[in-house]
Amino acid sequence: MVKDYIDTNDFTKEELLGMVELGLSMKAMIKEGGRYPQILKNKTLGMIFQQVSTRTRISFETAMTDLGGHAQFYGPGTIQLGGHESIEDSARVMGSLVDILMARVDRHKDVVNLAKYSAAPVINGMSEYNHPTQELGDLMTMMENLPEGKKIEDCKLAFIGDATQVCVSLMFIASKIGMDFVQFGPKGHQITDGGLQVENKVDLLAIGQKNCEVSGGTITISDDIECIKGADFIYTDVWYGLYDDEVEGASYMDVFYPKYQVTMDMMNYANPASKFMHCLPASRGEEVVDEVMDDPERSICWDEAENRKHSIRAILATLCPKTVENAEAADAAEARMKAALEKLA
Amino acid sequence: MVKDYIDTNDFTKEELLGMVELGLSMKAMIKEGGRYPQILKNKTLGMIFQQVSTRTRISFETAMTDLGGHAQFYGPGTIQLGGHESIEDSARVMGSLVDILMARVDRHKDVVNLAKYSAAPVINGMSEYNHPTQELGDLMTMMENLPEGKKIEDCKLAFIGDATQVCVSLMFIASKIGMDFVQFGPKGHQITDGGLQVENKVDLLAIGQKNCEVSGGTITISDDIECIKGADFIYTDVWYGLYDDEVEGASYMDVFYPKYQVTMDMMNYANPASKFMHCLPASRGEEVVDEVMDDPERSICWDEAENRKHSIRAILATLCPKTVENAEAADAAEARMKAALEKLA
Amino acid sequence: MVKDYIDTNDFTKEELLGMVELGLSMKAMIKEGGRYPQILKNKTLGMIFQQVSTRTRISFETAMTDLGGHAQFYGPGTIQLGGHESIEDSARVMGSLVDILMARVDRHKDVVNLAKYSAAPVINGMSEYNHPTQELGDLMTMMENLPEGKKIEDCKLAFIGDATQVCVSLMFIASKIGMDFVQFGPKGHQITDGGLQVENKVDLLAIGQKNCEVSGGTITISDDIECIKGADFIYTDVWYGLYDDEVEGASYMDVFYPKYQVTMDMMNYANPASKFMHCLPASRGEEVVDEVMDDPERSICWDEAENRKHSIRAILATLCPKTVENAEAADAAEARMKAALEKLA
Repeated sequence: MVKDYIDTNDFTKEELLGMVELGLSMKAMIKEGGRYPQILKNKTLGMIFQQVSTRTRISFETAMTDLGGHAQFYGPGTIQLGGHESIEDSARVMGSLVDILMARVDRHKDVVNLAKYSAAPVINGMSEYNHPTQELGDLMTMMENLPEGKKIEDCKLAFIGDATQVCVSLMFIASKIGMDFVQFGPKGHQITDGGLQVENKVDLLAIGQKNCEVSGGTITISDDIECIKGADFIYTDVWYGLYDDEVEGASYMDVFYPKYQVTMDMMNYANPASKFMHCLPASRGEEVVDEVMDDPERSICWDEAENRKHSIRAILATLCPKTVENAEAADAAEARMKAALEKLA
Repeated sequence: MVKDYIDTNDFTKEELLGMVELGLSMKAMIKEGGRYPQILKNKTLGMIFQQVSTRTRISFETAMTDLGGHAQFYGPGTIQLGGHESIEDSARVMGSLVDILMARVDRHKDVVNLAKYSAAPVINGMSEYNHPTQELGDLMTMMENLPEGKKIEDCKLAFIGDATQVCVSLMFIASKIGMDFVQFGPKGHQITDGGLQVENKVDLLAIGQKNCEVSGGTITISDDIECIKGADFIYTDVWYGLYDDEVEGASYMDVFYPKYQVTMDMMNYANPASKFMHCLPASRGEEVVDEVMDDPERSICWDEAENRKHSIRAILATLCPKTVENAEAADAAEARMKAALEKLA
Repeated sequence: MVKDYIDTNDFTKEELLGMVELGLSMKAMIKEGGRYPQILKNKTLGMIFQQVSTRTRISFETAMTDLGGHAQFYGPGTIQLGGHESIEDSARVMGSLVDILMARVDRHKDVVNLAKYSAAPVINGMSEYNHPTQELGDLMTMMENLPEGKKIEDCKLAFIGDATQVCVSLMFIASKIGMDFVQFGPKGHQITDGGLQVENKVDLLAIGQKNCEVSGGTITISDDIECIKGADFIYTDVWYGLYDDEVEGASYMDVFYPKYQVTMDMMNYANPASKFMHCLPASRGEEVVDEVMDDPERSICWDEAENRKHSIRAILATLCPKTVENAEAADAAEARMKAALEKLA
């Protein structure tokens, strides 16, 4: 398995499903069993946030505590990546002071370089390109909410609206797993328009299509609502992104409203049993109405938010190096330590 | 018992005294016994600070560590309450990612709404309306310093100066317990002038008087120094509040100085055995002189500051849901987890 | 031993070497033995940072976790030292809420006063005057990299460039240990010019010379490269400091470049077996070239960076008060606690 969790495309379908199973087992262990899996006891996670975050930050920090470890929070402006000190040097040093790192970055290449030069594993906590920890939590949520008699490979996931990094990420994991993925969005805001990528722009659709060749999944991108017919999961995200200024002459409301607003009519048009998902935070009354978001049967966005924690716990448990005791070496060093402490007392 | 610690008026006298006893027992356990009560092991506290704080923040974080848990710090500007995302949605999500929350807020209604919509308990770490964790620490401090032969119900507490939220809070808890409470302060800065409340202004005195009907306590508000006669505890707070701009034509020094400055003469006028208290930080030379604050016999404000930690520990221990192990469920989930981990290794 | 770690000159050579040995034993215990020395279990470290820091902050926080304790991070602007509240009062309160404190300060006198008024031990995490935690990690790194057959007292350490607080600190510890210390730097930027000290300027060289009288070490300060001949360790730091504005009419490049840039020629001129050290972060291409910094044989600056953590762990383990259980008192208090909890349930 690769050292870092930068992009789900670096993992096999089996590995990703294995992480979901790991996450679900630990969720049951804590919530039903009241027992915390202390498999990262004494371990330290360094969390670099170039942007403010609520869900991702809390999820990582709680997950690390649940596993017996500790998370250090480096807020916006406190750790420079690639300023006076080169990112290579920062990565090398940080990777020797903590056991595992995560970073929410402005530019995808920064988390890629962090991983490249750090001996410690690095987790991508979101970039302008993708949001792979969100992906795993979403996959977990769909697997907990499979329609009667369906496997995850049989399901259809429809993303409504703008090709944000969350939309792109969903295409990645859905195509990897073998689902039918749809983006229902306006021209100029479709995955084929490049998403929010800033540099080194890659052909997003080509990545998804390559996944489909292996998995048997499908990808559809359209501004015709017909495409969402039969969807098991309806997913949306906010309508404004990092590239607001590029929406010339028209605000995002003019572009997306009302056609791409998720209403109960749209939910039912897709499938009377469809479930509503959202990465949150939501702008109620814009991309989704209260009636959908607050429907206790149809909306699973709250479980989805909680699953950030449960899925991130699995990523940490999978990638963070575990402590293996060498009793002989430990005993010798401990005796030395006690002698040194005594001499200093 | 109510789920949240927003206002001591939501609790009975017995519950509040029970929390003081709990806090004192854990204080003895740690300081005299050298044993930490790990009753919140693996639990996570989320701390929302809309304003910078020293004492409250350190007290909460240390208290959570002492109990075996972990506190996450969300500094000013890092968590929005009621911006782009509604406070209801934020509360719902945060309440599913941590075990218990605390919030120091600009507006009291924000901590009320946080508690209303969060499944996890919420503790009010101070609003412009009240400061209930300070109250409990102050009650603890007074109970540790009772005059010979007196019960807490026999004691008189005199607050000197401005009707800050600390002053209002002291009236709440003193009247709940059945003490004699006095505010010695200038007209325009008395509790009956409304304190620092910004919205939904309530009749503060009426709340205290209702408490007195049950407890047998008394409340006196006056600008005549005669009212502090016989006080066992003299308490003050800084003279400037959130409403500085409303003090038209006169600075707070003109309003309060020298009449309301706590001097040794004032201490002795009240009672030669009176003790000095202050929520800190203090502006030495303004509301109190060095001679009083630094008197090792008369000043108990340093014990009071340390008691923030000891009393907050009790609030956390009382309200945070405890882990109850279900061995059968835990064993089954743990076996599943081990299998998943092995497959991923 | 003194309560605080403010200045290595407050410690004996034996104490400092004892701390290095303690640090090395715990490093072996964790890295080779896979066992964490939980000697500060339940203890709390408060970390005050008046300036942003990467290495020092991460090192302290990880070290505290490794020892079983918890570190609280107070970032720039969150704790005032000597604003509205006097530093005496802040120190007194903070010292009663945590077990040990560290502070990275703008002005050395602030960390001195913090230590003076806090009951809890205080560690200087760098001031404009000195950087004693860096010193101990550097001593540890040199002891791990002693030339064949040499003792640390036989070694020569040459600092190249500006008399930063790191340079001054190295002179302190080298002279204390009995090494030969050299600063090769331009007039106006030599230790004898006073370093970065802002207030209460002391005679830096006199302190080092006093150390040498006891230890047998030597101190040489010169702008003649001849002085680095025979050095076992070549150390440099960035060329810009807090006093940039005082370099009138000449940028630091004009002052230091190319004479004081560490190149492989300079390394070899000193000694073909010399090792390169740097406190980091480095400005590659200014005070040092890539060829030196990235040489796997000659550069030990990466081990040095990691040793920040290992040496700080030793300082914490040495100075932080340990918990000693009094079983009788603990049992009594615990019974009281359980009764109180039951009553509140």
